[in-house]
Amino acid sequence: MRRIAFLVLCALSGLTAGCTASGRAPVRYGMVIDVRPEQLAYYKQLHAEPWPRVVAQLAESNIHNYSIYLVERRQGEFTLFGYFEYDGDDFAADMARMAADPTVQRWWQETGPCQQAIPMAQGRDGIGATDWFVMEEIFHAK
Amino acid sequence: MRRIAFLVLCALSGLTAGCTASGRAPVRYGMVIDVRPEQLAYYKQLHAEPWPRVVAQLAESNIHNYSIYLVERRQGEFTLFGYFEYDGDDFAADMARMAADPTVQRWWQETGPCQQAIPMAQGRDGIGATDWFVMEEIFHAK
Repeated sequence: MRRIAFLVLCALSGLTAGCTASGRAPVRYGMVIDVRPEQLAYYKQLHAEPWPRVVAQLAESNIHNYSIYLVERRQGEFTLFGYFEYDGDDFAADMARMAADPTVQRWWQETGPCQQAIPMAQGRDGIGATDWFVMEEIFHAK
Repeated sequence: MRRIAFLVLCALSGLTAGCTASGRAPVRYGMVIDVRPEQLAYYKQLHAEPWPRVVAQLAESNIHNYSIYLVERRQGEFTLFGYFEYDGDDFAADMARMAADPTVQRWWQETGPCQQAIPMAQGRDGIGATDWFVMEEIFHAK
């Protein structure tokens, strides 16, 4: 079910090739989610000192150069932008492995309640067990 | 004046070190801007086939791995997220050189009217001669 959700997500995002990347060049992902204002301080604190096992699992799932940016778009409306590069060859399997990691599950128990799908993504599948919504890449320059 | 705006921007964004990068590791930038719905198709068309001189000027200004992502946050509300890596040692000078390029100036004449500063950034300085607003990086994993 989760695998199907991924394939649909990737197809919708024009990232089909990325979901079965050959491993030559990394596949870039941009994703977006909102953060609840009342949980913002805790969310930032968690990410300022991320749990080592969570960081290790990212690398084991072939996710690299992963950054999260914060912006207050309107007063009290906080949005997060995530960017990462994936250099594995089975994104769905790598994300399933991440979702199966007990420490990642506990991490998501902390971060999940801080986050909220953006208005247009509510009710739609996000990445993995999260509400992060994949965006369309419209430009790239090396 | 533009140089001062940059320094203020960098200081506000906690990116001071990045503005005078040593050239060892690239400095990451995440930035955000809105795109006007009625100009969205033209904006995407421009970026699907960017002018070669503009792309060359990015590299000459030490900007690499530059991606732009699009999301419809709410119905009819389109936001762009930009990510790039800077490996020069004088960001203000490199951006000034970009802003002085006649082809870049014409490019910005096309893209500028398509874009709109996000609500919280209106009236504040963006990157270079644009309304792109630098975001705060709250997480990074190699």
